[in-house]
Amino acid sequence: MSHARTSTESARLRFARLLKSERLARGISQEDLAELAGLHRTYVGSVERGERNIAVDNMEALANALGLDISDLLSAPAGDVRKSTR
Amino acid sequence: MSHARTSTESARLRFARLLKSERLARGISQEDLAELAGLHRTYVGSVERGERNIAVDNMEALANALGLDISDLLSAPAGDVRKSTR
Repeated sequence: MSHARTSTESARLRFARLLKSERLARGISQEDLAELAGLHRTYVGSVERGERNIAVDNMEALANALGLDISDLLSAPAGDVRKSTR
Repeated sequence: MSHARTSTESARLRFARLLKSERLARGISQEDLAELAGLHRTYVGSVERGERNIAVDNMEALANALGLDISDLLSAPAGDVRKSTR
């Protein structure tokens, strides 16, 4: 089907990676981000390590704390479909 | 900041709306989708009504069951930033 695409990286790990890189790009700590999002620092750390099956409301809170839309933290890497390894 | 954007529709409701529309576009039932995703029919129904704070692993399972990437079910509506009401 025309829409079919699969990613080699799980959505959970993609979110974790993008969250961390966007946080670091802003020069803020996990603690700062946690406070901005109304979450606990250790929780943010575990999300960034991909250890948490984070739910949509918290994903949105973290994105908004960074001034982003949730979709910005889940965007598929360019060419991800054809990537064979990661 | 340059990245700042906010949505008038919560991410949870955006996912719910897009999940339902993509499912209907394929002409499949909630029960079919649930089976494809390995989830329960009533759970899928509650997700489509925005009643569930669904976690990322299940969001990905539902997207993949539709042949989509998770980001396809969370994409911000065009012009959403300037939209004042929904």
